[in-house]
Amino acid sequence: MLIALLPGDGIGPEVTEQAVRVLDAVTGDALSFERGLVGGAAYKAVGHPLPPETLDLARRADAILFGAVGDPDCDALERHLRPEQAILGLRKELGLFANLRPARLFPELADASALRPEVAARIDLVIVRETNGDVYFGEKGMRTTADGLREGYDIMSYNEAEVARIARVGFETARARRGRLCSVDKANVLETSQLWRDVVIEVSRNYPDVTLNHMYVDNAAMQLVRDPGQFDVIVTGNLFGDILSDQASMCAGSIGMLPSATLNSRSQGLYEPIHGSAPDIAGQGKANPLATILSAAMMLRYSLGKAAEADRIEAAVAAALAAGARSPDLGGRMSTAEMGDAVLAAL
Amino acid sequence: MLIALLPGDGIGPEVTEQAVRVLDAVTGDALSFERGLVGGAAYKAVGHPLPPETLDLARRADAILFGAVGDPDCDALERHLRPEQAILGLRKELGLFANLRPARLFPELADASALRPEVAARIDLVIVRETNGDVYFGEKGMRTTADGLREGYDIMSYNEAEVARIARVGFETARARRGRLCSVDKANVLETSQLWRDVVIEVSRNYPDVTLNHMYVDNAAMQLVRDPGQFDVIVTGNLFGDILSDQASMCAGSIGMLPSATLNSRSQGLYEPIHGSAPDIAGQGKANPLATILSAAMMLRYSLGKAAEADRIEAAVAAALAAGARSPDLGGRMSTAEMGDAVLAAL
Ligand SMILES: CC(C)[C@H](C(=O)O)[C@@H](O)C(=O)O
Ligand SMILES: CC(C)[C@H](C(=O)O)[C@@H](O)C(=O)O
Repeated sequence: MLIALLPGDGIGPEVTEQAVRVLDAVTGDALSFERGLVGGAAYKAVGHPLPPETLDLARRADAILFGAVGDPDCDALERHLRPEQAILGLRKELGLFANLRPARLFPELADASALRPEVAARIDLVIVRETNGDVYFGEKGMRTTADGLREGYDIMSYNEAEVARIARVGFETARARRGRLCSVDKANVLETSQLWRDVVIEVSRNYPDVTLNHMYVDNAAMQLVRDPGQFDVIVTGNLFGDILSDQASMCAGSIGMLPSATLNSRSQGLYEPIHGSAPDIAGQGKANPLATILSAAMMLRYSLGKAAEADRIEAAVAAALAAGARSPDLGGRMSTAEMGDAVLAAL
Repeated sequence: MLIALLPGDGIGPEVTEQAVRVLDAVTGDALSFERGLVGGAAYKAVGHPLPPETLDLARRADAILFGAVGDPDCDALERHLRPEQAILGLRKELGLFANLRPARLFPELADASALRPEVAARIDLVIVRETNGDVYFGEKGMRTTADGLREGYDIMSYNEAEVARIARVGFETARARRGRLCSVDKANVLETSQLWRDVVIEVSRNYPDVTLNHMYVDNAAMQLVRDPGQFDVIVTGNLFGDILSDQASMCAGSIGMLPSATLNSRSQGLYEPIHGSAPDIAGQGKANPLATILSAAMMLRYSLGKAAEADRIEAAVAAALAAGARSPDLGGRMSTAEMGDAVLAAL
């Protein structure tokens, strides 16, 4: 099985390296990795954050293991050349529309959350975020108003097919868990959200076993702080999902622990830690590779049909934490490679 | 001085009643109150959530004291008849573009926050949210795609004049506090945000004494959980401000404690608690009136030039809390009127 390995910028190469070690250990030689340039690293090497060779590799692969993109050197570039365009481009070009982000606190890390331990301990949710539409991909630009003023604009929209397919992922995910789905929108203000809500309700008729509720995004942002334990699965659009999933991850403690998967309708997927490229600590061996290692486990489960191997990795991460493995973000001193060693030792 | 008193729905009438008692106590007969119908209550009485008489009253008044709007009976109405349209209409018609929401934890209530006490104790920030533009007020509607699919759309936009005037409020607010302004946008994806960032940077040249930084909204949502003490003043657009200000309020503990002001360029203002109409507890005397009482204090300070009276109210609220006044949301048993009594006693 072919894995497109896209380390990207900053700490991306360090953390993906450890994930590859762990994958090799659990799969023997079942996976072959092919490396591609992406993000600021790709721009610097070949002038584009998502070169055609990388896109072609991603299309050919069974799954994509992605590090992180983002490079301060590229901040002043035109939008279409910035590192972030690589991830947006991959999502769009490969039809990767369903971003799944589980947020759960490892009991060993109860101290890492800013929330009270009794609040944080209850977090066990998945955010299902749409990643192919919304205001991210609508027409956008700069224009001049009738009064001669500069104006920026972006069109937000969703059609019923786009909403229905992500809603189904939300319901399926809830059905496989505790059977509760919360759909988040801003239907009291946005027509895009009104359509979202209408279609989610239509789709819900096929899932009578799942309990559906609706929440406005402002209230959801509050509830994720007040009592995140109330949520099982949250389904939402691209923009609200961007905000809420980062917020939820912080509620669950260190952002260095949380994996993500972004799937298309062919079960191809892109797997990446939710943290960014962290240029300030890049190359110093300080980054926590566990989020990437857990993303690799998701890859085994969702794209490669290797659920048993995924379970083994997840158990090894828990065991490594229980044995005291701590990178600096978790209050310890272990290097990126030592964290990888700890997981390998636990396997 | 004329105050438009708009109690609205749910707990709105109960909480504004206590605020009026407190205002009367500190201002003698300097204020005269004129009542108007608003929200679901107005719809039920006269068929529109913001009747012309109410709008006229609001225009004539020196300031508006607002309870809350929102009524489940109205959920199925067409958008333009729903209670929320009253607040959106007032903001737009009166040019109330600058929503100020201070978030601070009263030390007596350290236990009310879901955040660890040491994290929550450091919260002392103001969110300055633009409330006259953004995707809230752009063209919106339902249309049919070329494939015959239903599609909802909303246009997000800001022009340079709109951004500059809210940026100035942000800088002025920061200058009067600890001198730090964080502008929140999503400039890595949205052109509206790119213009926002460009204009904020332009305006910053007039405020060399204020330290400006920029943060993406997803990161801001994380940082508000991780370390809210890092923020002094946050300035952001209508949609992001809606989400972040509710989130911040929950970080600061009970939502029953937090006031807000929304100002126009003539210093007319609308003052309201940030909580909603809470229909589940309406009419039971369980609502905490302190957020509305603190909103009344903001009204004295920002619209009526009575800073000393505002200080007296704020000190009385702190004293009442110190003396043990607690409504159910704060873990106590005092009724809405008893909470009002406690503040009056402390005055
Ligand atoms: C880098 C950025 C464009 C991206 C997004 O907003 O989707 C990121 O924040 C994410 O959540 O993957
Ligand atoms: C009621 C709703 C339209 C409103 C908003 O989104 O602005 C509310 O959430 C607020 O923050 O005042």
